[in-house]
Amino acid sequence: MIVYFNGQYIPKEQVVISPDDRGFLLADGTYEVVRIYRGKPYRIKDHLDRFAESLSKIRINFPNPHVFESITEELIRLNGLENAEAALYIQITRGVAPRRHPFPDPSTPPTVYATVYPVKPDTAKWESGVNVILTPDIRWSRCDIKSVSLLANVLAAQEASEQGAEEAVFVRNGFITEGTHTNVCAVFGGEVWTHPAGEFILGGITRESVRELCQQAGIGFVEKPIPYDRFLKADEAFLLGTTTEIMPVVEVNGKKIGTGRRGTVAKKLQELFFEMTHS
Amino acid sequence: MIVYFNGQYIPKEQVVISPDDRGFLLADGTYEVVRIYRGKPYRIKDHLDRFAESLSKIRINFPNPHVFESITEELIRLNGLENAEAALYIQITRGVAPRRHPFPDPSTPPTVYATVYPVKPDTAKWESGVNVILTPDIRWSRCDIKSVSLLANVLAAQEASEQGAEEAVFVRNGFITEGTHTNVCAVFGGEVWTHPAGEFILGGITRESVRELCQQAGIGFVEKPIPYDRFLKADEAFLLGTTTEIMPVVEVNGKKIGTGRRGTVAKKLQELFFEMTHS
Repeated sequence: MIVYFNGQYIPKEQVVISPDDRGFLLADGTYEVVRIYRGKPYRIKDHLDRFAESLSKIRINFPNPHVFESITEELIRLNGLENAEAALYIQITRGVAPRRHPFPDPSTPPTVYATVYPVKPDTAKWESGVNVILTPDIRWSRCDIKSVSLLANVLAAQEASEQGAEEAVFVRNGFITEGTHTNVCAVFGGEVWTHPAGEFILGGITRESVRELCQQAGIGFVEKPIPYDRFLKADEAFLLGTTTEIMPVVEVNGKKIGTGRRGTVAKKLQELFFEMTHS
Repeated sequence: MIVYFNGQYIPKEQVVISPDDRGFLLADGTYEVVRIYRGKPYRIKDHLDRFAESLSKIRINFPNPHVFESITEELIRLNGLENAEAALYIQITRGVAPRRHPFPDPSTPPTVYATVYPVKPDTAKWESGVNVILTPDIRWSRCDIKSVSLLANVLAAQEASEQGAEEAVFVRNGFITEGTHTNVCAVFGGEVWTHPAGEFILGGITRESVRELCQQAGIGFVEKPIPYDRFLKADEAFLLGTTTEIMPVVEVNGKKIGTGRRGTVAKKLQELFFEMTHS
């Protein structure tokens, strides 16, 4: 596997992250994941806009994140993934410096790492749906930043996994926010509801795709927080994510949502999303 | 500099953190800092007890953290720091594995890194005192875990630094919790007040030392949350930390605390702390 590291294309085994990297010591970095359909990155410009936003919010100086468009092309080529189902992972940290909390000397170059790797879509689960658990949202209140400071997400995802669930869905002040690595939607009376953008969720790119598809299909798209008890009584629910795509939720905390099977709105959106990503 | 890395003593330049390390990708790790006075680690057993607790809270399987007592001795010897003012930094992450939020296969060995390095105590500031700023505590609600998921602390520390302050002090729901890397005390009518232990602060080892010193000196030690507006009117205030020790706060948000000079309680505790650490 050839990866991109600090300006060079090298075998992954040759990458050396320093123990003084602020990503390793202080979670002082941000990342992005882009889905690659049959060798073509999907909405990479939107992902890189969001990446630029996260970098700017935590003030890591990286002038042109859109350079990853050509880096990604090169990584796809170098790894022979021109026709593959794959994903791109990019991470930028505030670089290598003696450990102190405040930013290091401004001349410190950021650490830049990117890799592409094959993915195997969960097609069976897109049909069967998955179960999720609800868990208190104990994360910080800047979830709009796609940072690597992810321990709370790790612990919640592990809790889900141990309960045989696919995802943990966070509840803050009684409202559904999002999953550990997905946005969350529920359907009420034919309308798709999801938490509004802001500091409590990461505005997903798939969420944007679904907003557009709803518009196109004449389905209402409502950005309002969903009380968790109302969520349990939704007609249907689904998760959205870059590699998760549109994943029906059929069970919450061991109890059926709606019919306990993939809902008609989820199925419709999946079909439209497939067309959108494969056109 | 010789460091300890996954069972070996090697030059720091030879340490290779993998880009798949869960510390780098997911902030999935914990750390500890121990002060070394004239070559002797101070309260290392207490630090390692706390380290064991953090490891256990995030469920990283590392059976005997107290092995760092002998590792530290060896690092001190190998680096010729037998009589030095120094510090130990230890970090353990959940190891190297393909990126997923839930824990990796239980057989994945943790990444273990430890280093000792000389420190130069801020003796002048212990006398002059420092200024701090107040900032909203936007961190997660498990601050009792000494994790490397520190981006919120980094951003707050940088804010302080840009305002010419030594530390940022967090305010949650109107109450002083702690600093980005220190505990915070205020003095009211001769009594030392500090936030109670729990999920909103990390129970510091220096905080424990100060509790004992207060007892010894007949000074009241009150574990109650301090409303931030009351904090501004404290007779004196100080920060506590492993390398910070007991640091008088003389200004908050640009305004004097008490007399605007080191207070008598801080001075007394500093003297007793010096005796305690140098006996």
